[in-house]
Amino acid sequence: VNRPEIILAPGPTPIPPEVLLAQANPLVYHRGPGFGALMTDVTARLKELYRTKDADVLLMTSSGTGGLESAIQNCFSPGDEVLVPLAGFFADRWRQLAEAYGLTVHAVEEPWGTRLDPSKVAAALAEHPGTKAVLLTQSETSTGVVQPIEDLARVANEAGVLVVVDAVSSLGAVPFAFDDWGIDVAVGGSQKALSASPGIAFVAISERAWAATEVAANPRFYFDWRIYRRFAELRHPENPWTPAISVLQGLQAALQLYFQDGVEAAMRRHEMLSRAVKDGVRALGLDLFGEGLEDNWTVTAIRAPEGLDADSISDRIRADFGCVLAPGQGPLKGSVFRIGHFGYFSELDIIRGLAALEMTLERLGYPVKRGAAVAAAEQVFQEAATP
Amino acid sequence: VNRPEIILAPGPTPIPPEVLLAQANPLVYHRGPGFGALMTDVTARLKELYRTKDADVLLMTSSGTGGLESAIQNCFSPGDEVLVPLAGFFADRWRQLAEAYGLTVHAVEEPWGTRLDPSKVAAALAEHPGTKAVLLTQSETSTGVVQPIEDLARVANEAGVLVVVDAVSSLGAVPFAFDDWGIDVAVGGSQKALSASPGIAFVAISERAWAATEVAANPRFYFDWRIYRRFAELRHPENPWTPAISVLQGLQAALQLYFQDGVEAAMRRHEMLSRAVKDGVRALGLDLFGEGLEDNWTVTAIRAPEGLDADSISDRIRADFGCVLAPGQGPLKGSVFRIGHFGYFSELDIIRGLAALEMTLERLGYPVKRGAAVAAAEQVFQEAATP
Repeated sequence: VNRPEIILAPGPTPIPPEVLLAQANPLVYHRGPGFGALMTDVTARLKELYRTKDADVLLMTSSGTGGLESAIQNCFSPGDEVLVPLAGFFADRWRQLAEAYGLTVHAVEEPWGTRLDPSKVAAALAEHPGTKAVLLTQSETSTGVVQPIEDLARVANEAGVLVVVDAVSSLGAVPFAFDDWGIDVAVGGSQKALSASPGIAFVAISERAWAATEVAANPRFYFDWRIYRRFAELRHPENPWTPAISVLQGLQAALQLYFQDGVEAAMRRHEMLSRAVKDGVRALGLDLFGEGLEDNWTVTAIRAPEGLDADSISDRIRADFGCVLAPGQGPLKGSVFRIGHFGYFSELDIIRGLAALEMTLERLGYPVKRGAAVAAAEQVFQEAATP
Repeated sequence: VNRPEIILAPGPTPIPPEVLLAQANPLVYHRGPGFGALMTDVTARLKELYRTKDADVLLMTSSGTGGLESAIQNCFSPGDEVLVPLAGFFADRWRQLAEAYGLTVHAVEEPWGTRLDPSKVAAALAEHPGTKAVLLTQSETSTGVVQPIEDLARVANEAGVLVVVDAVSSLGAVPFAFDDWGIDVAVGGSQKALSASPGIAFVAISERAWAATEVAANPRFYFDWRIYRRFAELRHPENPWTPAISVLQGLQAALQLYFQDGVEAAMRRHEMLSRAVKDGVRALGLDLFGEGLEDNWTVTAIRAPEGLDADSISDRIRADFGCVLAPGQGPLKGSVFRIGHFGYFSELDIIRGLAALEMTLERLGYPVKRGAAVAAAEQVFQEAATP
């Protein structure tokens, strides 16, 4: 069928035309003043987004996973102990990455969908006094749960361990404060709340993390932070390797759009869109998955109704309406589907998605009161517009 | 100054408008049939470019250097012995990468600009019978020399060691034959002869290299070939991590353009453009750098005339004409500058670059017969057009 894909998945998100067109501009050569100005601008905006004054922010050509691996390579040596609270697919990626590099992983295992309890993390840190860092995931995209990073970082700071955060699918959508929360490493990605194209990961690095880098023995080259810093400090800042210039040009345009309204407005918008999705879905009689729903502004995980396979919902809505939701991952496959609502979404994007969901569920035999989800979302938007 | 950058550097190269516009298309979601078709098409074209029937070709989001690191991670264990013939900046990158991962490097050191002698490599392999692989660089971009990979691979195959080739800046510009030459790993990049945007590296992998992968103990995750292969074998092929989709869309368009004329025509064009640059520069009385000039179709390294700093030439031509040449690297800094001529270049791109060089040299006080370089290039083009 010849029609647009309507992306309601947790990244890549819909890309604004301004960003797409910036990617179509002639590429600025990556060694020289033009690229230096691009890098300076993008880095300054990202520092504002991270809410950091002092941290270095490095840009790498990779997916978010590459950025995560860079943290493992640059901060640790084989045998180093790290604590990984496990409550979803992406937390488990931290575990896999750490194990791939020979770290000793102390896992705090919780059921998927759990909002982590900082006191349990504090207890685990007390139990393993040799721990060097805690590896956290702010938005656990597989369950929709946004973890309480501020509180988790507090107990980690009290224990004197590094705080390393996967903020790939949360940065820009939910509050983050690198300096105030005492974060040491935070990894973000171009294709999430900023709605640029995938291809660029960024990493914010504290002084303490730089100190860890000096003694870290893990092998590294392409992701070696020290090389990136050396090139970032040139008179015309550069990337050590030829970067994804077109994606960076798009990212610059995306940041410009994002900062037109500013960080606070983006947070309010994400909170509103999240409530609209959740109220809309509940109005259809569906149950939501995961704890901490009022804080989960990035993605909503929804239990499929009795007797319906969740994958059949995401398959059918894509086939019938070109609407891309995300299926369940890991143990949630078949029982949960997910709607992403961070990034370049407006109220009406959510409305059309909910309408498509209503019609899809009805076609699959689930009894739907037509317009019910849309009405619930309109209620949220009308309230938000009332002064 | 508000004018286009005219790129005559060895990558990124000028990007065709068709490619830029493909990057500006809405992104196809990276899990599903649309992306599967994109990946299948790009991979099939690349296999044709590599001239391989049986090798796997994997696509990764990174610069070429990331692709090189993937070879070190996936084929080797700490302590493994590798042979690295050193005759330029990028060969030395192999050495750095291998050492970063604790390999034992046997270096065959030659002066920069040397075209490697296969018999010397054979002798070094005989001297180090524990060697597991030879790490080669087809186009040594720092010196312009295109190394005799076919002959080098022959002696490596005779010695029973793996042949790992950095073909980043050569694939598509000069002949390459993965199967016929007995290559085991060859790394390419999107932003070179194919004239797509930077951001995608590709790696062709032989059966023997896959066997090495099974026993390789180097840590890896983001670049782990086994994970890429698993996702490439899905019904709708995928990348394991969110890839640089826009760059891939551009790469698909670039490959379509490239194959309109085909590989043979591209080779003839690169050979012609290379001759035009070299004859043009010589007509100005300048000396070329590096051995094997008639085979060096990717980039031409030029000695600055007595009394002129090479960087002043590349700085001035950029300031006055927006023309981006490449400065000298390593020991050649200040004495050599380079003109890249692989990728989306036509005869007239070369002509305008040579005219800019004539005027720049004259402005710097070097005596120039105006039009001499252009005339020499025209001579090459006229001959090429004569049946």
